[in-house]
Amino acid sequence: MAREIRDIIPKNRYGPILYDLMLEYPLRAAKGLRPALCVAVVRALGGRLEEVLRTASVLELYHNAYLIHDDIEDGSLSRRGFPTLHVQYGVPIAINVGDAMLALTLRPLLENMQTLGMGKALRILETVAEMSMQSAEGQALELAWIRDGRWELRDRDYCRLVYKKTCWYTFIAPMAIGGIVAKLEPMAARQIRKFATYLGVAFQIRDDVLNLIGDERTYGKEIAGDLWEGKHTLILMHAMRNAELEERAAGKNILSKPRPEKTEAEVRFLDSLIVRAKSVEYASSIADLAAGRAKRVWAEIEKELPASVHREFLASMVEYVTRRDR
Amino acid sequence: MAREIRDIIPKNRYGPILYDLMLEYPLRAAKGLRPALCVAVVRALGGRLEEVLRTASVLELYHNAYLIHDDIEDGSLSRRGFPTLHVQYGVPIAINVGDAMLALTLRPLLENMQTLGMGKALRILETVAEMSMQSAEGQALELAWIRDGRWELRDRDYCRLVYKKTCWYTFIAPMAIGGIVAKLEPMAARQIRKFATYLGVAFQIRDDVLNLIGDERTYGKEIAGDLWEGKHTLILMHAMRNAELEERAAGKNILSKPRPEKTEAEVRFLDSLIVRAKSVEYASSIADLAAGRAKRVWAEIEKELPASVHREFLASMVEYVTRRDR
Repeated sequence: MAREIRDIIPKNRYGPILYDLMLEYPLRAAKGLRPALCVAVVRALGGRLEEVLRTASVLELYHNAYLIHDDIEDGSLSRRGFPTLHVQYGVPIAINVGDAMLALTLRPLLENMQTLGMGKALRILETVAEMSMQSAEGQALELAWIRDGRWELRDRDYCRLVYKKTCWYTFIAPMAIGGIVAKLEPMAARQIRKFATYLGVAFQIRDDVLNLIGDERTYGKEIAGDLWEGKHTLILMHAMRNAELEERAAGKNILSKPRPEKTEAEVRFLDSLIVRAKSVEYASSIADLAAGRAKRVWAEIEKELPASVHREFLASMVEYVTRRDR
Repeated sequence: MAREIRDIIPKNRYGPILYDLMLEYPLRAAKGLRPALCVAVVRALGGRLEEVLRTASVLELYHNAYLIHDDIEDGSLSRRGFPTLHVQYGVPIAINVGDAMLALTLRPLLENMQTLGMGKALRILETVAEMSMQSAEGQALELAWIRDGRWELRDRDYCRLVYKKTCWYTFIAPMAIGGIVAKLEPMAARQIRKFATYLGVAFQIRDDVLNLIGDERTYGKEIAGDLWEGKHTLILMHAMRNAELEERAAGKNILSKPRPEKTEAEVRFLDSLIVRAKSVEYASSIADLAAGRAKRVWAEIEKELPASVHREFLASMVEYVTRRDR
């Protein structure tokens, strides 16, 4: 996807201080999941790659802009095996690179007016508008939980967070946009959206699991970084909920500290709560549940699609979201 | 303008942690300069307020989102007489509020398709795309100067910075969008753009002057904040250029320090270089020069416009940009 993003980025004198930095994350062996999903839906429905390539690149641009800003907000130190952008270049430059990436998304989406016609171009723009609002609201929800030290949360709170923060821009918008480009009927579009939502929940839970048990070289992020950051994962929420009163109080105290003030021993204590409550196993079972629902919805969708590698790719997402190791 | 912005902001459960914070800056006695310019151009050309009100609010939303992110990037402590958003709520929340404000701009601009027709709506969206890129490039240029400790800069470097960072989103885009809404002819549109550029340069220099000599209660920002932040103003660039070799080295050393590490004595030293080189007077003379050019361009534009309070408002901008005290 780095090549398509490069096509969107201007080649001018501001390269070294702005545009080159936009390629930092995309060039770090990114999965390109969002554009891949978008393209697969179009192709599985018989559409052409050229119709959607630009828009798919815009989704990757959004994703990378969010990563840059989220890494600052979460105080993350590494991303895809290297220091995060703000660690490498400082917070001011990193904020601005993210802003510039968001600014770059508008022009290619307007060019869709010529290539796809006004109706489709407008619906894509509306989907992107919804996507960016959902993502910002999800981020706000999590930041509020952090600020207020809230850990008395239920699984449905977690699901609402993930729906807004992950599902929308990683699964719902890419697949919905694919559907718009390939003229999917409204009913089928609703099915795709359900499929995307269940996939997103399973995907995010697996991401949280990998952060705890993954191999840093494969996974790319630092292991247990979520505990250091005090991130609201289903795992940690389950562990806190099941801890004894005093332990929970101790846990909340640790989690209220900014990252640099936490000690190794404190992070190990959080990990011990997780091990005792079997929270990784619990979270994995919820991920399997979501993946199972995705599979059932997919069975309905699949019937309407001709056999193709693109249909197979979409089908394989159900396995992927719960089995991936990076 | 706070009321129009309120109309764009969703009223939902995320209010207290996201949307309410978007009104922080707009409610702090903002000047509303950008929407005022946009509306004035439309009205002076015989257009109706309703045609442009939503779009004008979007410009104010952009402005306030930029202020929030810029305040973080510049390490600013106060804004319009109160602590900056990131000082009050922390950097993570402030970054996200800015992002959410940018996300909110898209929908009202798409609604222009219905109210203004596709042609105008598209041209407005293209202008906004250009505006946000220019602003990000301007910000990148300044951040690069800061990172590299560059102070051997000429007035034309300053003008390029201001053109991208201030002129575009404060004057050029608002007035160009007013022209699009009111169907201004291409030649007149070019004149308006020239007018806007000269106004912008004079406006920013006056802003830099006010930061040094203004009254904090009137001006709203902390006085000499620019020196503490090491901002690349025409004044400081002139003073550095005219300092003796050793003093310039001492100045660069001070300016390379992050804000909290500078001392009162060091900031006074920078101020003494400014006083000695008469840099405030020099900068004011450049602002007068730019305002003079704006006035000459305006004389041409004015001939084509019927007399109205809106025409008078635009004419008064020439005086305003060099005489204002806030």
